[in-house]
Amino acid sequence: MTSVLTVSLDAMGGDSGPDMVIPGVEEALLRHPGVRFLLYGDEARMAPLLDAHPRAREGCEVRHCEVAVAMHDKPSQALRRGRRVSSMWRAIEAVRDGEAAAVVSAGNTGALMAMSKFVLDTIPGISRPAIAAVWPTLRGESVVLDVGATIGADAEQLVDFAIMGEAMARCLFGIERPTVGLLNIGVEEVKGIEQVKQAGRLLRVSGLPIEYAGFVEGDDIGKGKVDVVVTEGFTGNIALKTAEGTARQISTYLRQSMERSLITRIGFFLARSAFKVLKDKMDPRSRNGGLFLGLNGIVVKSHGGTDALGFAAAIDVAIEMALSGLIAKIGADLAAKRSLEEFQPAANAAAPNP
Amino acid sequence: MTSVLTVSLDAMGGDSGPDMVIPGVEEALLRHPGVRFLLYGDEARMAPLLDAHPRAREGCEVRHCEVAVAMHDKPSQALRRGRRVSSMWRAIEAVRDGEAAAVVSAGNTGALMAMSKFVLDTIPGISRPAIAAVWPTLRGESVVLDVGATIGADAEQLVDFAIMGEAMARCLFGIERPTVGLLNIGVEEVKGIEQVKQAGRLLRVSGLPIEYAGFVEGDDIGKGKVDVVVTEGFTGNIALKTAEGTARQISTYLRQSMERSLITRIGFFLARSAFKVLKDKMDPRSRNGGLFLGLNGIVVKSHGGTDALGFAAAIDVAIEMALSGLIAKIGADLAAKRSLEEFQPAANAAAPNP
Repeated sequence: MTSVLTVSLDAMGGDSGPDMVIPGVEEALLRHPGVRFLLYGDEARMAPLLDAHPRAREGCEVRHCEVAVAMHDKPSQALRRGRRVSSMWRAIEAVRDGEAAAVVSAGNTGALMAMSKFVLDTIPGISRPAIAAVWPTLRGESVVLDVGATIGADAEQLVDFAIMGEAMARCLFGIERPTVGLLNIGVEEVKGIEQVKQAGRLLRVSGLPIEYAGFVEGDDIGKGKVDVVVTEGFTGNIALKTAEGTARQISTYLRQSMERSLITRIGFFLARSAFKVLKDKMDPRSRNGGLFLGLNGIVVKSHGGTDALGFAAAIDVAIEMALSGLIAKIGADLAAKRSLEEFQPAANAAAPNP
Repeated sequence: MTSVLTVSLDAMGGDSGPDMVIPGVEEALLRHPGVRFLLYGDEARMAPLLDAHPRAREGCEVRHCEVAVAMHDKPSQALRRGRRVSSMWRAIEAVRDGEAAAVVSAGNTGALMAMSKFVLDTIPGISRPAIAAVWPTLRGESVVLDVGATIGADAEQLVDFAIMGEAMARCLFGIERPTVGLLNIGVEEVKGIEQVKQAGRLLRVSGLPIEYAGFVEGDDIGKGKVDVVVTEGFTGNIALKTAEGTARQISTYLRQSMERSLITRIGFFLARSAFKVLKDKMDPRSRNGGLFLGLNGIVVKSHGGTDALGFAAAIDVAIEMALSGLIAKIGADLAAKRSLEEFQPAANAAAPNP
């Protein structure tokens, strides 16, 4: 790795590809003038955009790729067509080869996960990766994982997610002991599905340096009751999308109610600075970027439909994680867990039955 | 059953018990002057409240009960202490005995479900009941089930939920062919957990008169993409609470942003009629009442923390369901399903594998 922080980008990912990625780089370079970018994609398509964005042209090294993974490709198709040659694959390879400290793509999530697992492999001890989202809350932000990678995680995997999410929260929020909760349908010990109850017992008796706060419910996420919310991928994905849907629904109600009369329109005009604040708080672009956890490298997935500002926010996440040494922290935590297990092989068996 | 529609009420349920229930009856009798109520609870506690609410005193028959189920009782405790004697148990019994067409309680959900199963039993062919919620959407309202009764429902149970939810939507919304979707993490056939995929195949080939619309995602619920959203209880409960939490979070942001300056306060004052509309749309009291489906009787669970208006809304749901003959409709649909199965025993085996 060079001494300059380098981030590789899949320029062809997302609904608009380079038309969104290159203005996003232009924006990111305003905040991070010292960072260098490796831009993987169709050279001819990118050239006029780079001419129009001088900072991006200056800060990027273009690496031409003939193939782009399509947004609707199945992971297997993407691997077949895009292996070794696509912009997505090669951007990930730059991380494996130490040329870049992190990769960002707005491309197809399934393909990005499949290729990342293939190229980077999982961290020793992690069988399946997770996708972590940064969730705005009344107290600030929380990390929520998994939001769609590992359907039906077992208790051991939930504990691994807790370890990885906790490390991410330390890096992202700069707090020493983030609190960790398991998402459940009640806070009592006896409630919920077996995997979640067992993960709770494991976290309680593990001896891991984790501030385990017990079970949390769906409405505790937005309250910011804990810094890290752990769940398996099916439920996490549905919770995330339900929250996004509810936020959009309320925005629509609000817009409709504004249009009711001249007086309400005047009122809303006067209160527009307040709405700006509200809009910013609810702006999904401000924390755009699902982080893939459990891989030997930092992979950030930006929303496919985002714009330049959103893509720049995903680049922010990649840079923050790279600078804070996330992968090394996760590696150390998992090693600590393994050595604890050697001393306490019966931690689970010793726990009381529900 | 008498010729007058009668609803039995657990007057001791909810955080405030009779202080909330009796004003709720007063409110409900404004809208439904012809309905009669059986009021189960502590006579001495209710007497002064009935004196203060003349409509309720007129419309209710009080049935004294010594025991009340506590909000924090475990279902097993509630059954032990409250069997045959508690206001909750006896209010449910009134339905079994044909004295009431439906029961409403704001008490402890687990206890209410346990007692309802015990007293009313499940409909033939239904192994486990579901709780259905009415979810406000951009297109109106949808039925979402299960929101917490049956954790980890299998494919067959999800199909039963689809049948019951569809019957409820016909009764509640007065539409002939409500659309039904299965909650999943993608709309493609190959995505998601095995039970959900299998339920999708069953619904597609079943020959049931159900307008099955395929998979829906978390953000489709608020859009009102389908009239009935089917999921198992763990995910459904978390989705519901996450949506409630997000709505409260945005309300808090809105309130905070109003207070920013004199100008924004004036603006919000002028636009207050619009906010009234928004508040009404988001008011959780307007459709308060989870309906227990799959039992030989109509049981409506009101939120424990609701007020008189919310309790009256739960009574509305009970009355609508009783008048529309929900239980008979579900029974007929399940009988139709069984007779289809006799002719197509291999419907599932004949479906293509994923």
